[in-house]
Formats: sequence, structure tokens, C-alpha cells
Amino acid sequence: MKRAVVLLSGGLDSATTLAICAKDGFEPYALSFDYGQRHKAELNAARQIAKSLGARDHRIATIDLRIFGGSALTDDIAVPKNRSATPNEIPVTYVPARNTIFLSYALAWCEVLGAADIFIGANAIDYSGYPDCRPEFIAAFEHLARVATKAGVEGTQFRIHAPLLAMSKMEIIQKGTELGVDFSLTHSCYNPTADRLACGQCDSCRLRLDGFRAAGLVDPIPYANR
Amino acid sequence: MKRAVVLLSGGLDSATTLAICAKDGFEPYALSFDYGQRHKAELNAARQIAKSLGARDHRIATIDLRIFGGSALTDDIAVPKNRSATPNEIPVTYVPARNTIFLSYALAWCEVLGAADIFIGANAIDYSGYPDCRPEFIAAFEHLARVATKAGVEGTQFRIHAPLLAMSKMEIIQKGTELGVDFSLTHSCYNPTADRLACGQCDSCRLRLDGFRAAGLVDPIPYANR
Repeated sequence: MKRAVVLLSGGLDSATTLAICAKDGFEPYALSFDYGQRHKAELNAARQIAKSLGARDHRIATIDLRIFGGSALTDDIAVPKNRSATPNEIPVTYVPARNTIFLSYALAWCEVLGAADIFIGANAIDYSGYPDCRPEFIAAFEHLARVATKAGVEGTQFRIHAPLLAMSKMEIIQKGTELGVDFSLTHSCYNPTADRLACGQCDSCRLRLDGFRAAGLVDPIPYANR
Repeated sequence: MKRAVVLLSGGLDSATTLAICAKDGFEPYALSFDYGQRHKAELNAARQIAKSLGARDHRIATIDLRIFGGSALTDDIAVPKNRSATPNEIPVTYVPARNTIFLSYALAWCEVLGAADIFIGANAIDYSGYPDCRPEFIAAFEHLARVATKAGVEGTQFRIHAPLLAMSKMEIIQKGTELGVDFSLTHSCYNPTADRLACGQCDSCRLRLDGFRAAGLVDPIPYANR
């Protein structure tokens, strides 16, 4: 079985991506990051998802993006609630170069595992405006991987799989459901309450709730404000 | 003054790169990594070099590449001594995806600083065979930076400066000397002795000693085996 590294945040996109990786015949190695995010609920979710979907291994890399600052997800900037849709604006929850850093780590692990495939749950439709969730970014990193590594120089054709890239949140939820993802284990909220309930108001909660609604399904997680 | 992020390992290449960055009119922000390397002498060197060459700020990012393993510089694989020159072989001291990870962090800091310029002391001549020290790699990362970031999407033309790329070790030492780099502060050895002396036998020591010899200069650091 070919090995693949899967970036696993603990949200529903990356859980569905892990399920797709396994369905496509890869042996999944899940990789999560403790990057100074203000809430650790997503790491607990990632652990449970990796187990429930049969990841061969799961590692959590500790990295400290707070030393640079610059995002509502790692700093003391307030997470916006119920902001109006402005498709061309990049929100303050953007973490500088986050997916670039995450894919770099995945690439390092690939080299050690002898793997050529990386799966990332990036999504260009409902992506909240992050530049590092676009097809141009995925293509640029794939090219970089081939010239950056010992394996690439020796002929490995690295591939960055972003199977959700052109899917709507509704389609992601349908695909995950079809593949048996237990969405009750996933965590999406940017701004959970003290007792770890999803807020139901941040960009991420709203996209999720709209997706379940459009799919005609009920989101199995509880919300604080619904 | 335009800000620039400079990767600073504590070796003579990155010290010279920092001096070039300042000479070119940038305000240098130095970035080093505590990445589980077996010896911390190079981080102490980086601190002193940043200070002596007037870096505006110096940050040390802690990252743990050991969770993946795979290199003599972070694992228990023996560092080779006096190995014969085999230009097409990538040595065991190669750390998987190291420069990719380092540049990703530099890119994150650039975004927070509003900087568009990154300086890296990569060298394609005396580079010990690392794939992520080649011009193709630098060009690929420069392209990635422009599509990966909020700043890039908004028009910032990121540039990865690798001023040493085509220089021999001799030329680097001459350039550093001309710009006033204090090479007695720099650390290059992959395998220092318990009392922190350079071994004089690993690839890095041999390249350094050959460079000083070719430049007709005396290396100001002490060696254990000379």
C-alpha cells in the first residue's frame, strides 16, 4: 500500500479528506499542528478522527506561530461575528503562511516515510478568502516539492491532493457522509465557548451550518447560540 | 528603510548574507531555528552575529523536526568524517525539507512585518549536495510566496535573495571579510567536541578550511584536530 501524509485539523473538511485518502487506496499518516491556536478542542477532535478513520499513524507537530503574531486565531484580535459576506476580502482569521508551513512539514514527513502523496483539505469555494486555499497555491507547492527534496531530485513525482478544492461545503458533507465520516467528532468553530460549544456565529460555524442545511442533513454537534 | 527577513544559522554563509542584506540597504530581521539539532553552539553564534551586524530584531523559532527523524543532524545517525567527494550523492546530514520549512517561517514573518524580501545563504557550489540549495528551489519558492500569501495576492512581489548562490566558499569568505563580518563568531561544524571545538573533519569544517586556505586567510576559530 502506498503511504500518504494527510493534514488533519480536526474540522470536517480534513476529516473528509482523510476518508477520501483511505478510499483511494492509500495508507494514511495523519499530521496535526499545535500552533498556538487559542483553543485546543480541534486537536482532541483530530485524535479521535484519526483513530475512527483508521490512520496508520498520527503525529502532532508543535510549532509556535505566535512568535510572529498577526492573526485573530493566534493573537488577541477579536474573531468577527456574523460579518457580512465580502468575497474578495481576506479575513483577520487568516494565519500568515499557515498552509505553506503545514505542507512543508508534511513534505518532510513524506521524505522520511518514502511517500510521494500529500492530502490537504483546502477548499476554494467556501474557503473564507484564504489565499493559501487556491488551486494556484496547490500547484505551486507541488512544483516546489519536486525541486526541494532529495526524493524529488531522485525522481519522486510528489503530488498534493486537494480533493475538496472545487467542492461546496454541502458537497463535502455529502461526500463525508457517504464515506462514513462521523461528523459528531469534528470541530470547526473559531471561537468556542468556555464549555467547548461551537459559537454558531463565526465564519466557520456559519459555513458549516449552511452546508448541513443545504445537504438536507442535521449537524450532529451542539451549538451555544442556536 | 525596507525590511527584510534573513535566515541566520550561525555559520559563515548566513553571517555573510546578513552583512550583504544590510549593505544592500535593507533593515535586517534575523530568524534562527532551534530545530532539535544535536548541538546548540550555532544558536549562540547566531545571537552574537545578529548583534554584531546590527540586526533590527532576532527571533529563534522552536520547531521539532525530530518527530519525523531521518537525518544525521537531528537523529543518532553518525556524521561522516573525511568522506570522499561524491558530488551527486546527497549526504546523510541532509535534513528533510529543511530550507522549505525555514523559508515558510520567514514568509510568515514577512507578512506580519510588511516585508517582501527574504535573504537566505543557500549556496549551489559548495553546498554539500543539498537539493534545497539550488537555484530551481529558490525560484520555486519565490513563485510560491507570491501565490501563498495575503500580501502576494494584494500585489507584493516577494523576492528570495540568495546572494551566495553562485559563489565559492573562498568568494564568500572574501565578501564577508570585505563587509566586516567577524568570522570568529561563526560556527560551522556538524560534529563539535564536548568542549565546543570544531572537529575539523566533517564536510562543513573541510569546506570552511579549504575556503580560508584558498582565500589566503587564516580561519580565526580553533579546531580540535588540526
